[in-house]
Amino acid sequence: MKIRDVVLTPVAFADAPLLNVMGVHEPFALRGVVQVVCDDGVGGLGESYGDAAFLGEVRKVLPELAGHDIFDLPGLKRIIARALAGTVLTDEHGLIGGFSIRKTIASVYSLFEVACLDAQGQFLGRPVADLLGGKARDAVDFSAYLFYKYGAHLGAEEDSWGEILTPEALVGSAKRMVDEYGFRSIKLKGGVFAPEQEIEGVRALAEAFPGHPLRIDPNAAWTPATSIRVAAELDGVLEYLEDPTPGIEGMAEVAREASMPLATNMCVVNFGDLEPAFRARAIGVLLSDHHFWGGMRDTQALSVACESFGVGLSMHSNSHLGISLAAMVHVAAATPHLTYACDTHWPWKTADVIEPGVLNFVDGAVAVPDRPGLGITLDQDALARAHEDYVRCGLTKRDDVTYMRKYTPGFEPNTARW
Amino acid sequence: MKIRDVVLTPVAFADAPLLNVMGVHEPFALRGVVQVVCDDGVGGLGESYGDAAFLGEVRKVLPELAGHDIFDLPGLKRIIARALAGTVLTDEHGLIGGFSIRKTIASVYSLFEVACLDAQGQFLGRPVADLLGGKARDAVDFSAYLFYKYGAHLGAEEDSWGEILTPEALVGSAKRMVDEYGFRSIKLKGGVFAPEQEIEGVRALAEAFPGHPLRIDPNAAWTPATSIRVAAELDGVLEYLEDPTPGIEGMAEVAREASMPLATNMCVVNFGDLEPAFRARAIGVLLSDHHFWGGMRDTQALSVACESFGVGLSMHSNSHLGISLAAMVHVAAATPHLTYACDTHWPWKTADVIEPGVLNFVDGAVAVPDRPGLGITLDQDALARAHEDYVRCGLTKRDDVTYMRKYTPGFEPNTARW
Ligand SMILES: [Mg+2]
Ligand SMILES: [Mg+2]
Repeated sequence: MKIRDVVLTPVAFADAPLLNVMGVHEPFALRGVVQVVCDDGVGGLGESYGDAAFLGEVRKVLPELAGHDIFDLPGLKRIIARALAGTVLTDEHGLIGGFSIRKTIASVYSLFEVACLDAQGQFLGRPVADLLGGKARDAVDFSAYLFYKYGAHLGAEEDSWGEILTPEALVGSAKRMVDEYGFRSIKLKGGVFAPEQEIEGVRALAEAFPGHPLRIDPNAAWTPATSIRVAAELDGVLEYLEDPTPGIEGMAEVAREASMPLATNMCVVNFGDLEPAFRARAIGVLLSDHHFWGGMRDTQALSVACESFGVGLSMHSNSHLGISLAAMVHVAAATPHLTYACDTHWPWKTADVIEPGVLNFVDGAVAVPDRPGLGITLDQDALARAHEDYVRCGLTKRDDVTYMRKYTPGFEPNTARW
Repeated sequence: MKIRDVVLTPVAFADAPLLNVMGVHEPFALRGVVQVVCDDGVGGLGESYGDAAFLGEVRKVLPELAGHDIFDLPGLKRIIARALAGTVLTDEHGLIGGFSIRKTIASVYSLFEVACLDAQGQFLGRPVADLLGGKARDAVDFSAYLFYKYGAHLGAEEDSWGEILTPEALVGSAKRMVDEYGFRSIKLKGGVFAPEQEIEGVRALAEAFPGHPLRIDPNAAWTPATSIRVAAELDGVLEYLEDPTPGIEGMAEVAREASMPLATNMCVVNFGDLEPAFRARAIGVLLSDHHFWGGMRDTQALSVACESFGVGLSMHSNSHLGISLAAMVHVAAATPHLTYACDTHWPWKTADVIEPGVLNFVDGAVAVPDRPGLGITLDQDALARAHEDYVRCGLTKRDDVTYMRKYTPGFEPNTARW
């Protein structure tokens, strides 16, 4: 089954003013959607980053794909490596550990791998999870993803979440998420306030949600010494501590002292990082992400490598739509060694590009669609609207820093600031 | 698509009196063949060990499989783990590093995983390589596998290879193999004679086959000190040195001094061995084997772990028939990081259980069958004959040691003997 055409559609969707170490989310988040079109109505969907630099790399690949067999994934990777010709993307928002040539190829490849696997599933009449070796679980657990946030975007009305800057507001937002989605694990995006303040937030959550595993992710905002101190203060409270400090060496220093495992999606971001990180015993949990780990099959291989070294596996998320969620659900379902609930930004978005009804959260989990491929259907009208939003919003990259400076002039993002 | 029935057939096929550290191959090699039967003519084939202990474990699983979905491989593994209830096989012939609970499950699972993947391919109309992510290569390179051997089994006539005990005879057998199959790499099974004598053999091969990569595998017959000495003497002659000495620690000691990479299928035999071996930098090449590494998908994951740690990948072989060869070809084809020609015992056998014509060696390589599933067809008459041979030969396990004692009374197998 050969590819006839591939359509790339940049889209934007409204996002809330969520705070993190780099600043604050802009009014729109960007994504790229690809539709792989074959004959006989067979097609496949993929979703990934939507910044101009990434889309530029994707566009280099598009003209090379017509006639390519959707089952020839090693050939797909060769085409992409050739088309990219050694380009290295930069990490626009600084939160997923920088790019190498290999990670750039892996990221672009992933977008098309997912679309090809969806198309394979459509063609064969089987869910993608089956093509990945079958479901190790029927539903995939996700974690509530709490953010500190402003009440409103600049010049806009307050959103339904309102301002979340205090422990009380955090607990309130968690209640809403847990009530609505049934999440059983809770993650707090930190790195926004001084560690003492965030520790207070975590403690408030622990008190309000006894028995719910908790995580905090300051995106490397702390020094190793601060991280060790926070780890001691949150001993017995966190299931894992995510990226407290930058770099494998710093993480290893913290890991030697912390009682809970350290997790990362920043210092171990491609296969070349495994050896130094595992040798240094820097991490206890890896946050996989098929968007930059080279797709769904490489994510499965990653999990086996982690299992072999006694490292747990969770899943990282950026702001995303339903195609990414469907892919996350299928790969997570087909990955036996997945030891924690996955991250998702799902509750923060209000629009999508797929038809509703398939990816529902029940008790914090999404059942694996049992329809062919990813099991989702593109809503062409919604896609057109999201593309219009993309054109209208005028954003071409994620830039939390510049936007933050409109709230806080002189804001400087930097890691290990505390 | 659900399993209706699974048929296990123990088979035997004539084997030559091949020498190794444990003794000499008996007149027959044993294998187990499974046929998974579904509805609508869909079925799948698997092949693995044929000794009574392994077949006993397989028989525990058979009654549990009816009604199981051929796409539910994680469920298959759960069924097997439950049916085996913690049994640990012993390594009958001592050449693949001993068994753990995990490796026992992995070995039994592999037999059924291959059969289910073959059935999936039959059902979907796609080659197994496609279900594993697609072909990274259209044909898979194999290595000539030379053995020292006696001219004849006890009480039997000399076989067509005759006695191979000298460098000249080794070169002669290599010429025949290379002429007939086109092999471009050559492996010598060592551990039979004192190292000086085997070094002479390797040097004679190097002289007769310039440009052909060479390997020797003494199955841990040497001490670390001897291994270091042999490595120095064969500097520039070997592409890798396979299992010169027992254990990860001993291998690491040799690896620190040897100029060529060390390979193993003895000291790293399941995922739990990766961490200590990689930490100790004990090996430069891993010999994968889907029969005991948990099947085809886990073999692919293994290759990614090896690649991440800068370790090369080759493939181990036991005496085998065409079903195993087909599986080896598909998984090798779908494994991008495969850095050496694979082992095969193929030239030593004279019968098979599959219809001929599909798996042909051209220039030492086997083209990946592009028919559905494994792309092979069981020859029911040949299977019946091989099963008759199994019954008639009376062997129930591989026991090179006892058979060797009939040639050399008082023979004692032991590793690190030199
Ligand atoms: Mg993170
Ligand atoms: Mg060996």
